[in-house]
Amino acid sequence: MKQFLILASLCCLLVLLLTGSFPAKTSPQKSTPPNVVLIFMDDMGYGDLGCYGATQYQTPNLDRMASEGIRFTNFLSAQAVCSASRAALLTGCYPNRVGISGALGPRSTVGLNPDETTLAEVLKKQDYATAIFGKWHLGDNPAFFPGKQGFDTYTGLLYSNDMWPVDYDGKPITDETNYRKKSYPTLQLMENDRPLRDITTLEDQATLTGEYTKRAIQFIKKQKQNNTKPFFLYMPHSMTHVPIAASAPFRGKSQQGLYGDVMMEVDWSVGEILKTLKETGIDKNTLVIFTSDNGPWINFGNHAGSTGGLREAKGVSFEGGQRVPCLVRWPGVVPAGRVCTKLSSTIDLLPTIAAACSAKLPEKRIDGISLIPLFKGDFAQTPRREFYYYYRKNNLEAVRRDDWKLVLPHPGRSYEGQLPGKDGFPGKAPEDHPYPLALYDLRRDPGERYDVQAMYPEVLADLQNLVEKARVDLGDDLTNRTGANVRPVGKVADK
Amino acid sequence: MKQFLILASLCCLLVLLLTGSFPAKTSPQKSTPPNVVLIFMDDMGYGDLGCYGATQYQTPNLDRMASEGIRFTNFLSAQAVCSASRAALLTGCYPNRVGISGALGPRSTVGLNPDETTLAEVLKKQDYATAIFGKWHLGDNPAFFPGKQGFDTYTGLLYSNDMWPVDYDGKPITDETNYRKKSYPTLQLMENDRPLRDITTLEDQATLTGEYTKRAIQFIKKQKQNNTKPFFLYMPHSMTHVPIAASAPFRGKSQQGLYGDVMMEVDWSVGEILKTLKETGIDKNTLVIFTSDNGPWINFGNHAGSTGGLREAKGVSFEGGQRVPCLVRWPGVVPAGRVCTKLSSTIDLLPTIAAACSAKLPEKRIDGISLIPLFKGDFAQTPRREFYYYYRKNNLEAVRRDDWKLVLPHPGRSYEGQLPGKDGFPGKAPEDHPYPLALYDLRRDPGERYDVQAMYPEVLADLQNLVEKARVDLGDDLTNRTGANVRPVGKVADK
Repeated sequence: MKQFLILASLCCLLVLLLTGSFPAKTSPQKSTPPNVVLIFMDDMGYGDLGCYGATQYQTPNLDRMASEGIRFTNFLSAQAVCSASRAALLTGCYPNRVGISGALGPRSTVGLNPDETTLAEVLKKQDYATAIFGKWHLGDNPAFFPGKQGFDTYTGLLYSNDMWPVDYDGKPITDETNYRKKSYPTLQLMENDRPLRDITTLEDQATLTGEYTKRAIQFIKKQKQNNTKPFFLYMPHSMTHVPIAASAPFRGKSQQGLYGDVMMEVDWSVGEILKTLKETGIDKNTLVIFTSDNGPWINFGNHAGSTGGLREAKGVSFEGGQRVPCLVRWPGVVPAGRVCTKLSSTIDLLPTIAAACSAKLPEKRIDGISLIPLFKGDFAQTPRREFYYYYRKNNLEAVRRDDWKLVLPHPGRSYEGQLPGKDGFPGKAPEDHPYPLALYDLRRDPGERYDVQAMYPEVLADLQNLVEKARVDLGDDLTNRTGANVRPVGKVADK
Repeated sequence: MKQFLILASLCCLLVLLLTGSFPAKTSPQKSTPPNVVLIFMDDMGYGDLGCYGATQYQTPNLDRMASEGIRFTNFLSAQAVCSASRAALLTGCYPNRVGISGALGPRSTVGLNPDETTLAEVLKKQDYATAIFGKWHLGDNPAFFPGKQGFDTYTGLLYSNDMWPVDYDGKPITDETNYRKKSYPTLQLMENDRPLRDITTLEDQATLTGEYTKRAIQFIKKQKQNNTKPFFLYMPHSMTHVPIAASAPFRGKSQQGLYGDVMMEVDWSVGEILKTLKETGIDKNTLVIFTSDNGPWINFGNHAGSTGGLREAKGVSFEGGQRVPCLVRWPGVVPAGRVCTKLSSTIDLLPTIAAACSAKLPEKRIDGISLIPLFKGDFAQTPRREFYYYYRKNNLEAVRRDDWKLVLPHPGRSYEGQLPGKDGFPGKAPEDHPYPLALYDLRRDPGERYDVQAMYPEVLADLQNLVEKARVDLGDDLTNRTGANVRPVGKVADK
């Protein structure tokens, strides 16, 4: 009888182990606030991951992350350009609400207003350790450094990796061509408030992904050792922004030239982070989010990513400029293998993470809405994001409700019909293009090819009301409207 | 000790049951030839399944089929129109090789040549029971009936469900408008060589999906009872070709109006077929394939499907006309959850199924290549499909090698800029549109938006060689070339 009991117990143990329902030794208490890892790509397009249709290189770590979590198919970057998108990510606001638009250049006298409450500050109030390894781009004046915005630790570039005095051929610039300028300062890798080393060659650029990854792993391991605080790790990669560069082990690995190689190195990096979380036993209590700042800069041809067929690209408010991949992995909370087709945006990540970490929202008004109900598949639950305003700078160019998108008449640019560049050199700049009023049904026409305004007058009317709402709230330079609820950008005196 | 052995055995049993490695009672012998179910949609687009991005209705059975098998993302219908696509499916040839192009109308004097060896005949030689429940469209003269082409059993329509004397409003046609004609005969549901009942109203149309499904289930059950022969079941649905119609239980079920309802009924049908295979214990030895004849007829607006953003649609050789979903489920042979991004086509299904069933290929030359290596993930193994010729009728409009597509200068049509129709009524017909020479890199530009011929002269030259190869082999009416290897269509004397 004793033998029977022992063996019966062994059987039970076996069942528990095989069904995976036996709690692992490292499993956290339910009440432990989760760690947060936020990986943010630069100029990576909607079609650039295997799980979003990329064919000529493999992204096995990201694809597995998708299969273990939730994959969003209607996730919009806040605006189709770098600084604006990042300001929105860190404040949970439309970027023009906090006065940031476009991409800040070196020696900028503006930056994200220190009066704004960033995601890092939201979490610091909950006693999180906070770190950023990667590209900042919210002000390169010390007044705006990451340390002023809630980050304990920083290693990275202060702005885009192409804002350097180096030409497309890798040689020093001799004239003030395009946006790369002879007068730009040397590009530097910063460590907190001090320059660590210069980035002057493509070989230097090729070290960035590895450097950020190494720092991230060290940070995770150190937090685990101290084991006192949860952490927030923000990894805004410099890649796949031009000039793209991969380290030696990844060169020639893909079937899509250097761009594919760079994507494979980023995928490797994500794999290393996820592996470190597992090895340190905190995998199950860590919320990992992976997304991008805007669509691909297709003017650079084979050195750019893909929109996966969506219209236009970086800098343009059509879907190719703003719709980006978004993956969320949070074992035990986010069901594995879910695909969410609902409208959502970068501006929703701050309230989502705040809710996940039981942190207080900023006191100032935000525009984001927590995605937690969508994580759980509760699409019917309100509030969820039902509309979005597509601005370029402070020009209202389109509005969207669910899958209906109204493009307003506006002067814009178009990459279509332009010869893209090759091997690091840009093509002809996108042409000025006047866009007329058009209504798109993105359910059946994600490519924004067929204007159906004449067929759905009731939808048109509804979206025109939304336009009015946006103009009252945020303003619209195209119609000389001033928003009632916009806040000032941070400013310093000219150097 | 005896107790120990019994319990140890129970433990082992438990392990086997839990890990699913215990052979089921109904598991077939490895040498049993597989049954084949081939489900073929009509005018269903690349974006019309949940697992291909549809958002406003659910296709849980098809999505599960995808997760249990392989999902193709570069699968091309043979030509972008009905009869041509079906001729290719059943012969494994480019449709113009066997003389079939466009869509055959009622009282046609041509049909698929009985001298051609169809997929049904290939399998009959292996002693398969063969059945077709659905739309034939390869000749409505008795000389061309399914019974003449290898099918034992037939219930369905002889051609498209809109080739009837009924107008867009459901009333009898009073003049000879468009392609629907007052002079068309009454549309009939055939049972083998005889009319079974008339299809004269939209209510009648709404019975078709259910009718085909009922027949298919009866056929599977009957085969299982007799249990002597393997079977080939071909289900070419009449839906989602206009006039679309859903039976009462499905009306209003989706969030995308009638089109979504119709898709949900088709998904239900697939679910019933898969359920029947399971219940009869033959699920594991049945190869199930689901695909579509061409892209959506977007001229019908909300009564049409979606290309998922691909360019143009039905009747046009851009990807929106030809790229279609393709799912393959074959437990034990096809690994679960695989996505295949390699080029493949409807013309490959005959040699694939022949290989799966150890059947002999037709004696006449075919163009298809077995997909079995792709099922198994062996992408490097040759032969696999490396190129494709895009014809419209006998006009060579484009060629493709892997993910490079060269569009030849040709007169074509464009749906873009045209107002689509609504609620069963068509929009303005697509406009004539002269297309210039253009090279597309479908890896990064699946929407065929950016001509890169100037940047890749070596690719251009390679594809121009492919053009020459196609013209020598299959001909090209646009350049007055006659193909060396084309065969005659079937013909009967005028009635």
